[in-house]
Amino acid sequence: MTVGDLGEFGVVNRITGRLPQGAAVILGPGDDAAVVAAPDRRVVVSTDLLLEGRHFRRDWSGGYDVGRKAAAQNLADVAAMGAVPTSIVVGLGIPADLPLTWLDELTDGFRDECAVVGASVAGGDVTRCDQVVIGVTALGDLEGRAPVLRSGARPGHVVAVTGRLGYAAAGWALLEKGPPAGSAALEEVVAAHRRPSPPYTMGPRAAELGAGAMLDVSDGLLQDLGHVAEASGVRIELDPQAFAVAEPVAVAAKEVGADPLEWVLTGGEDHALAAVFPAEVRLPESWQVVGRVVEGSGVVVYGREVGRRGWDHFE
Amino acid sequence: MTVGDLGEFGVVNRITGRLPQGAAVILGPGDDAAVVAAPDRRVVVSTDLLLEGRHFRRDWSGGYDVGRKAAAQNLADVAAMGAVPTSIVVGLGIPADLPLTWLDELTDGFRDECAVVGASVAGGDVTRCDQVVIGVTALGDLEGRAPVLRSGARPGHVVAVTGRLGYAAAGWALLEKGPPAGSAALEEVVAAHRRPSPPYTMGPRAAELGAGAMLDVSDGLLQDLGHVAEASGVRIELDPQAFAVAEPVAVAAKEVGADPLEWVLTGGEDHALAAVFPAEVRLPESWQVVGRVVEGSGVVVYGREVGRRGWDHFE
Repeated sequence: MTVGDLGEFGVVNRITGRLPQGAAVILGPGDDAAVVAAPDRRVVVSTDLLLEGRHFRRDWSGGYDVGRKAAAQNLADVAAMGAVPTSIVVGLGIPADLPLTWLDELTDGFRDECAVVGASVAGGDVTRCDQVVIGVTALGDLEGRAPVLRSGARPGHVVAVTGRLGYAAAGWALLEKGPPAGSAALEEVVAAHRRPSPPYTMGPRAAELGAGAMLDVSDGLLQDLGHVAEASGVRIELDPQAFAVAEPVAVAAKEVGADPLEWVLTGGEDHALAAVFPAEVRLPESWQVVGRVVEGSGVVVYGREVGRRGWDHFE
Repeated sequence: MTVGDLGEFGVVNRITGRLPQGAAVILGPGDDAAVVAAPDRRVVVSTDLLLEGRHFRRDWSGGYDVGRKAAAQNLADVAAMGAVPTSIVVGLGIPADLPLTWLDELTDGFRDECAVVGASVAGGDVTRCDQVVIGVTALGDLEGRAPVLRSGARPGHVVAVTGRLGYAAAGWALLEKGPPAGSAALEEVVAAHRRPSPPYTMGPRAAELGAGAMLDVSDGLLQDLGHVAEASGVRIELDPQAFAVAEPVAVAAKEVGADPLEWVLTGGEDHALAAVFPAEVRLPESWQVVGRVVEGSGVVVYGREVGRRGWDHFE
């Protein structure tokens, strides 16, 4: 059975029927707009567009993983401000011949990724499209804290990261090469490409700890830290020795003959968090200190300055 | 010069450089997320996806009109809850060969439509796409009022509409037939197809006046009132004599040999507001009373019940 068999109203009812509403949703799907709680009189809002063929492939990822990934990348943006996500709304373009099972899985993916942070899908819009197009907007609550911007890095701060780095890039490299051999490590990075696991709770926690600047690592650490350096008017020096390359990433690199540290430094889509903290802050174990903030500009690793576009201009 | 010549960062800078920030925007574009004021601890949120070829055609509408229309349809949803729009965020998919002038016009369209209601573009996302894809999410402030839902219509209420009805459908019919003759009336409906003029301020005003239910007319009045009837568990009786067909719509109907009242009753995309009020409410002149709410179910016009899908099942 396909989306076309069900019609627009049927599709909307099918989607909303699978979506429980969280405590922050005052009015859920079914009216002209939703109403969501914004307890401290401010709302954090982030939006992203995901396109089939460009951001995901239906032959590489099932609907469930696509839904989780689409929700995750916006929820991670909210967490990177130091906020707790409350809800998402979703604009969905789908072909008439899309199997209903795929749509159900996509919906469940949105639902389950939201549930990780206690959020829910408050509303959306469905339209016909030749390919799957997903527009996700996430809302969040700062709980009275100031948002943690990209512009607050100061000389003397340490640079730290938390969450996975290099996993999604490793998984992509394996998928591009062909079906991976069945080792657990290889399966893990392929799964990470399909579905990131952002360290959501570390966002608000970093804000409480006094993070000076923070962002979600979505385009690759070097490139993303370049935004912090530029917005803050500082230089960021990274210590390549300080990065602990995770075992599954190392195994995958061996498999395809790649440099695992390149994936760690330049791979996007893991949605790790990178932040800077005053040197005296005692960071929880899940943060790795990987560099420091000094006077100047740009991002430096291996003693060389990284170009604005990251690895492209690096070698 | 095209989008491809400028690259992703250049495009983002070009867009944000054209966007002044309104008072409700605490943190605008440039970080992981925006921060928007939500004065009464709630935020109204509505999202829509607009696709080239399906919702607009670049040979029928310039970038400016597409931007205004995309913003308008979401701002109208917010107004239809009785809220004042504060901001929009935009996910944009654009081809590399898109002329920069078109992108600039689109951006200015978003900006100017937001300015009509005192809102602004607080953030967004840009990605490459073969066709133009626009995901708009609008936020709004209820100013302490209860949201006006679709489910609050009660027997005894009068049904009233405000804003244009039939204009966009007339304009579409003219465009489909070919370039319209140069009369002012025909120009007006074609312009209305390209760019709606929702009666934004009437949304919060209707809430203050005690509207029991309200919605944005986007799929056609009969179909949209069907949602009110269903959500409220009531019957809506419309009086076709009560509709004043606007002069430009009447002229366009003559031009193509159509029934203007059909456009008024079933045309979408004008983003008029339809609401029900207690009979004793004195409505401002801009509202036309066109029917009443009674016990029962469905929508009745010309003494016959309208099918759920509107005009399709009407004749």
